[in-house]
Amino acid sequence: MKVTVLGLGSMGSALAGALLAAGHETTVWNRSAGKDEALVARGAARAATAAAAVAASPLVIACLSDYDAVHGVLEPLADDLRGRTFVNLTSGTPEQARESASWAAGHGAAYLDGAIMSTPPGIGNPAVMLLYSGSSQAFAEHRDTLASLGDPVGLGDDAGVASLYDTALLGMMWSTLAGWLQGVALTGADKVDATAFTPVAIRWMSAVNGFMSTYAPRIDAGVYPGDDATLDVHLGAIEHLVHASAARGLDTGLPELLKASIERAVAAGHGADGYARLIESVRAGGRA
Amino acid sequence: MKVTVLGLGSMGSALAGALLAAGHETTVWNRSAGKDEALVARGAARAATAAAAVAASPLVIACLSDYDAVHGVLEPLADDLRGRTFVNLTSGTPEQARESASWAAGHGAAYLDGAIMSTPPGIGNPAVMLLYSGSSQAFAEHRDTLASLGDPVGLGDDAGVASLYDTALLGMMWSTLAGWLQGVALTGADKVDATAFTPVAIRWMSAVNGFMSTYAPRIDAGVYPGDDATLDVHLGAIEHLVHASAARGLDTGLPELLKASIERAVAAGHGADGYARLIESVRAGGRA
Ligand SMILES: NC(=O)c1ccc[n+]([C@@H]2O[C@H](COP(=O)([O-])OP(=O)(O)OC[C@H]3O[C@@H](n4cnc5c(N)ncnc54)[C@H](OP(=O)(O)O)[C@@H]3O)[C@@H](O)[C@H]2O)c1
Ligand SMILES: NC(=O)c1ccc[n+]([C@@H]2O[C@H](COP(=O)([O-])OP(=O)(O)OC[C@H]3O[C@@H](n4cnc5c(N)ncnc54)[C@H](OP(=O)(O)O)[C@@H]3O)[C@@H](O)[C@H]2O)c1
Repeated sequence: MKVTVLGLGSMGSALAGALLAAGHETTVWNRSAGKDEALVARGAARAATAAAAVAASPLVIACLSDYDAVHGVLEPLADDLRGRTFVNLTSGTPEQARESASWAAGHGAAYLDGAIMSTPPGIGNPAVMLLYSGSSQAFAEHRDTLASLGDPVGLGDDAGVASLYDTALLGMMWSTLAGWLQGVALTGADKVDATAFTPVAIRWMSAVNGFMSTYAPRIDAGVYPGDDATLDVHLGAIEHLVHASAARGLDTGLPELLKASIERAVAAGHGADGYARLIESVRAGGRA
Repeated sequence: MKVTVLGLGSMGSALAGALLAAGHETTVWNRSAGKDEALVARGAARAATAAAAVAASPLVIACLSDYDAVHGVLEPLADDLRGRTFVNLTSGTPEQARESASWAAGHGAAYLDGAIMSTPPGIGNPAVMLLYSGSSQAFAEHRDTLASLGDPVGLGDDAGVASLYDTALLGMMWSTLAGWLQGVALTGADKVDATAFTPVAIRWMSAVNGFMSTYAPRIDAGVYPGDDATLDVHLGAIEHLVHASAARGLDTGLPELLKASIERAVAAGHGADGYARLIESVRAGGRA
């Protein structure tokens, strides 16, 4: 397959490298000179201009700093994109992705917006996810080529969804890591090494994954049975987390916040419901 | 093996049932009558008194509501425990566990304190963890029998550590689930079902597990290189989480708290460090 990569920063270079490694005929372009040298030495074709780069391939991937940079490069070339697939792997908001999708549609280009759930060294590893939303037809057509970059996960026709997942998944990462740091600090205060606690924590995360799998259909159905543990039981147990953290002089901000959200739901009369009931208060802006 | 179970509430009954299923000669006792019937029908020996139950086996497991209940039952029987192993699977604090350990040592009993990382239906499943701390010798001796209840994880000689892990792991659970709910609410606002988002979230958790494995030895060594992503980069990205949540009318409490902790570390001059640097501020009570 012929593929073009626009932007050879640390991520764009990794993308182009993975395409070359998979045997694709890869054309590269970067605003400033010099960043294409290693890639050209590995067989990439150097395009002198962005227009030449777009003209070289039916599949055009952009990975620039932000959407303004993407528009700066591609707006003058809108008509050159006609009939091609434009895959935008630049990070942005769902709103920016949706605007780009309608801009591309207006110029006869198929559009996919992507989110890369990895740093550059992970690119090319099939365990790494790249999320795509936008034209399902373009996704089906180019899926095999995109698989050279990491596992392609298609999220449907709303171009904004990949970036929304990106934000949601990063949010889960920060939240999980913050809970892990609290656990490391708690056990560390009683002389347990982080390297001793962490393998047990990681095993426990598969139980937590099981809770998510159980709760997800309940959230979709709007029913929150307290069959595994009620919010009343959670409230009793979370008291220990606040207390043990305070007794060791640790930050109690996160434990207090987690406790407060359970407490509000219990105060609102939902103590006999299960944990998944808290979705309602997240949706309601924090009101239980 | 001969084993005694004191307390046949929902958890104690599950424990006794798993021991019977594994073929152990199981003696059971409960304060109020009737809860032993199904177990006796399956082959358990009914003890008329707690004293008779203790006398029946070299390994005595207690699972009562709380430590006060345990002391109420066992203090009058302290001398009957001499030479036996007492495994306390009642939930409590590290301090309570340490007190029970010295009380047992004072009466010549080996002591293990345990934390059950499951609800009763999981008991007997080898994927489920039961954490034990206290006498390493007793743990080695009874490990095979305890394995009937779920995978026994030994955490060393400080009897308080199992309950501290319990608190730390539950804290990770609440924190992870709260991050997941935020993600479900974010994507749900743009018409993604929880059952669509969750499998992607679960895949992403294995990447997050990888970050913990990378950061744990750094925390033990006190070095926090910003090689994968710096706190400056995290701060830029977490802005999207706060913004996207606010734009959809969701609770911004958790995103704001996660952002504030990164912001404090950046303001204190650690923007070029990696995420693991935040352990210092958790330990310092929230000061960066
Ligand atoms: N690095 C990661 O770990 C990672 C992970 C996931 C997603 N991403 C996303 O991937 C995208 C690229 O990141 P990166 O790490 O590769 O960044 P980078 O190393 O800073 O590269 C930025 C690229 O954008 C180009 N660029 C910036 N402004 C431009 C403009 N006005 N016109 C033309 N080209 C312009 C730069 O060209 P010059 O060389 O001429 O400056 C360079 O090729 C970002 O949206 C980032 O959020 C990165
Ligand atoms: N259930 C779970 O999912 C779960 C998970 C992990 C850990 N745990 C822990 O396991 C322990 C037991 O939980 P559970 O769910 O089995 O509770 P439960 O169903 O309420 O049973 C409580 C047991 O404690 C006995 N008890 C209470 N006070 C007593 C006293 N003063 N003297 C003698 N016996 C007394 C009760 O006897 P009577 O029948 O006479 O009242 C009953 O056998 C708790 O510490 C709990 O935190 C439970």
